[in-house]
Amino acid sequence: MGSISQTIAADGGSTDWQSKVSRKQQECRDAIPKEWLIPSQVLKPLNYPLDKNPNRLIDLGIIKKAGILSDREFAITEDYTVSDLLAKLASGEFTSVEVTTAFSKRAAMAQQLVSCLTETFFDIALERAKFLDRSRGEGKLLGPLHGLPISLKDAFQVKGVEASIGFVSFLGKKSTENSPVVDILLSLGAVPYVKTNIPMTMMTADSHNNIFGRTLNPHNTAIGAGGSSGGEGALVAFRGSPLGVGTDVAGSIRIPSLCCGTYGFKPTSSRIPYGGQATPGLPGWKPIVACAGPLANDLDALEIFVKAVVGAVPANLDSTAIDVPWRELTQTPDPKLRIGVLAEDSSYPLHPPVRRALAEAVKKLQTNGHQVIQLSQEQGHVADASDVATALFGLETGTSVGHIKASGEPFVPSLTQGNQPVNRGVERFVPDISDLGKLQQYAALTVKRQEISEDWRRIWLELNLDAVIGPPAQNTAVPHDTYGWPPYTAHLNLLDVCLKGILRR
Amino acid sequence: MGSISQTIAADGGSTDWQSKVSRKQQECRDAIPKEWLIPSQVLKPLNYPLDKNPNRLIDLGIIKKAGILSDREFAITEDYTVSDLLAKLASGEFTSVEVTTAFSKRAAMAQQLVSCLTETFFDIALERAKFLDRSRGEGKLLGPLHGLPISLKDAFQVKGVEASIGFVSFLGKKSTENSPVVDILLSLGAVPYVKTNIPMTMMTADSHNNIFGRTLNPHNTAIGAGGSSGGEGALVAFRGSPLGVGTDVAGSIRIPSLCCGTYGFKPTSSRIPYGGQATPGLPGWKPIVACAGPLANDLDALEIFVKAVVGAVPANLDSTAIDVPWRELTQTPDPKLRIGVLAEDSSYPLHPPVRRALAEAVKKLQTNGHQVIQLSQEQGHVADASDVATALFGLETGTSVGHIKASGEPFVPSLTQGNQPVNRGVERFVPDISDLGKLQQYAALTVKRQEISEDWRRIWLELNLDAVIGPPAQNTAVPHDTYGWPPYTAHLNLLDVCLKGILRR
Repeated sequence: MGSISQTIAADGGSTDWQSKVSRKQQECRDAIPKEWLIPSQVLKPLNYPLDKNPNRLIDLGIIKKAGILSDREFAITEDYTVSDLLAKLASGEFTSVEVTTAFSKRAAMAQQLVSCLTETFFDIALERAKFLDRSRGEGKLLGPLHGLPISLKDAFQVKGVEASIGFVSFLGKKSTENSPVVDILLSLGAVPYVKTNIPMTMMTADSHNNIFGRTLNPHNTAIGAGGSSGGEGALVAFRGSPLGVGTDVAGSIRIPSLCCGTYGFKPTSSRIPYGGQATPGLPGWKPIVACAGPLANDLDALEIFVKAVVGAVPANLDSTAIDVPWRELTQTPDPKLRIGVLAEDSSYPLHPPVRRALAEAVKKLQTNGHQVIQLSQEQGHVADASDVATALFGLETGTSVGHIKASGEPFVPSLTQGNQPVNRGVERFVPDISDLGKLQQYAALTVKRQEISEDWRRIWLELNLDAVIGPPAQNTAVPHDTYGWPPYTAHLNLLDVCLKGILRR
Repeated sequence: MGSISQTIAADGGSTDWQSKVSRKQQECRDAIPKEWLIPSQVLKPLNYPLDKNPNRLIDLGIIKKAGILSDREFAITEDYTVSDLLAKLASGEFTSVEVTTAFSKRAAMAQQLVSCLTETFFDIALERAKFLDRSRGEGKLLGPLHGLPISLKDAFQVKGVEASIGFVSFLGKKSTENSPVVDILLSLGAVPYVKTNIPMTMMTADSHNNIFGRTLNPHNTAIGAGGSSGGEGALVAFRGSPLGVGTDVAGSIRIPSLCCGTYGFKPTSSRIPYGGQATPGLPGWKPIVACAGPLANDLDALEIFVKAVVGAVPANLDSTAIDVPWRELTQTPDPKLRIGVLAEDSSYPLHPPVRRALAEAVKKLQTNGHQVIQLSQEQGHVADASDVATALFGLETGTSVGHIKASGEPFVPSLTQGNQPVNRGVERFVPDISDLGKLQQYAALTVKRQEISEDWRRIWLELNLDAVIGPPAQNTAVPHDTYGWPPYTAHLNLLDVCLKGILRR
């Protein structure tokens, strides 16, 4: 660390990474109104340190006990689906100011307990809420999300706010433009109010970095909230946000959703605009294209989000987005669906609760008259696809390591404890891979990827499937720094299944 | 060449590349029925060698004079649009057998004059035409292309037929499956009957290789037919095919169209299925994604093709295709369109006829009440985008060179006379590019590509454009081996403009 920090010091700026972090943390604390700080007597029953003790914050009802939310505010955050909230915001039964205030307070409280936030801009959000209320008063709704507070993963850029994504070396640089999806949400009437925590490099399932700390699971603080959109998972589960926007290149929306018990949707890439984000890796190098998508406490919310964003014609604001319209079913689908079930992959055995949940889902589907088709491990390709993804990610890791080393900060434990992508070996597909140049390796891995995609296309078509369900992971939420590599989510990013629409016409 | 051909000889197979080519050429000639050979007295007025003398085959009326087509057959090939032909095939006024026969005869004659074909399978096509006629007789049309013969660029695979794409080293291997687009065309009722000529490596605009020779322009045999879908351009212009399918990664549909005076459409990539083709380059390495698209003698034919293929849900047959439905305008567009005009780029000055054609187009649009917005050279980004494309293609060229060297055949002149991609220098975007590894170069070029795409998105949106017109090339058709690198078409492959649909809503 020596020489780098000395160089920085020679520039006359603040010296070491710790002092930068301290200053940033103080700024973050100062941005939370004093009256939203949880009284110490409410915190007294908790077991510290929180990350080492299984505090069940949701079961304990900490938020209610804190007494910061009025009954009405508490109800706003607790009792309504996104659809309900939007209806009441549109009718004027709720104002955007009171909904935004309620979720801002609750997000601020969540932050004090589970470190789920990075940036907060409650004042800007409340100003916007006032504007939206006036607009509604004049009979004008901006769009289908009028008045709704929406949280954003830290990687999304909001003008005037930092997007450090947990790198100390990125601190101090405010975004000069909104990411396209932020502009779209604004045009639809949403109220951005907080950004949420992520893992250093965004490539682990532990949302932990040296600036914003470690996000804890509000159900049990001794286990992880998942990642990389772990701040979103924890915040949404804690009902500090009605709807959050995450990103996903190997499971980063789905992992926090499963860890925190929320709903999450990873769309096909390039549907929801992903452009203009802070990136931990090498710009221009996207061997697997990441996507943006929603997390929420009810399933309909995911559809509301996607339909609204797609309806705003994302390609107009982001050249990386494809212009594919939202499609409604034009005919009543067969009430008996044909649903494939992904097999457990013997390389990645399922923990008993996951196996049980999958079996229960299958049973319910069958009870409801749907046809369930068990796929074989060979048909699933989980381990093969996961290994190709791992190898693709492994082709370039120097850039994010460089961002860490630039400040002299240490690696977080999840990056050094074997939880980063591990190459199980793609030599069974590309025997001579280590003899090849990087570009040739990329090409050879892409060939294998296409073979897997083609196999899946055939399976889908030949079995006449309407959908496939499967385990989202080997495990449920697990103790901090033990999640490991996520084959069951990553294999779907590799496939990046296209919009197959209604195959059974 | 020595050691490679000796190795082949040691295997006991046929020895040198020339004898393989001779055998293949004889097979190709034998596949053409004797009664379709143009009588020598009809050929007598031509000036030989054809490629050195400006024989205006279309003006000379050679096809009619050959006397091989009946009057009715001649009319079928000459007097109807694709829409007309399809209507008459559907009504039974024309049978598929007579339409297929007419175009087969004419394609066979075209081949004798301009070397536009690679593989022919007239007998299979006629059997299929009979089947389609029986089907129609029973009241069943297979699809919107019922009974129509369609020609295919050599790169498309047809089961049981070779797809050598002009590499001697590829000869002797019959395709074991149809390319997805071929299966789709069959499902729509089309009749594949010939495959068409391409340049060695498919990366020049001269459709010339050591197996199938050089495709000549039927308007003037001393000039090129363009490439890489040059066989299609020449065949369609000679009316030996009503509708052809080409591919385009830098201009390969548009160049033959402009050289031969046909219509051609390069869709956004992944719309028309491109999978399952013979490829000259490194499998899995697609820095710019090529696309498939139609060539025809009338504009409507292009829409008929794309609408039919997209309607067949290509993603069901090809995992590289995206499932985006055909969209009809739901409201009457403003009769006054806003049309941008790409500027001439000073690095690539336009020849006078091209400049004049563009000026005439602008004048006609204005006369018809449309608003024409002249874009600046800076807004066009033609040279920048073309240079990024050139550099991307240049990252991997060893594979196709290896395919050439594998047989010992020599390079065709257009590959050695400075007509392959030339790097004008991307150092102005990436100053240190030569110090970077291939993967880092690719990433840096992709960043520049994204910047250009974003600029174009902004221009399109800020100027509220409905369309942009521009020169398709610096030149019209030119003497053989002088076409050079095509910046005006290649820059659009780099942009690969997404389906922006109806921006002005």
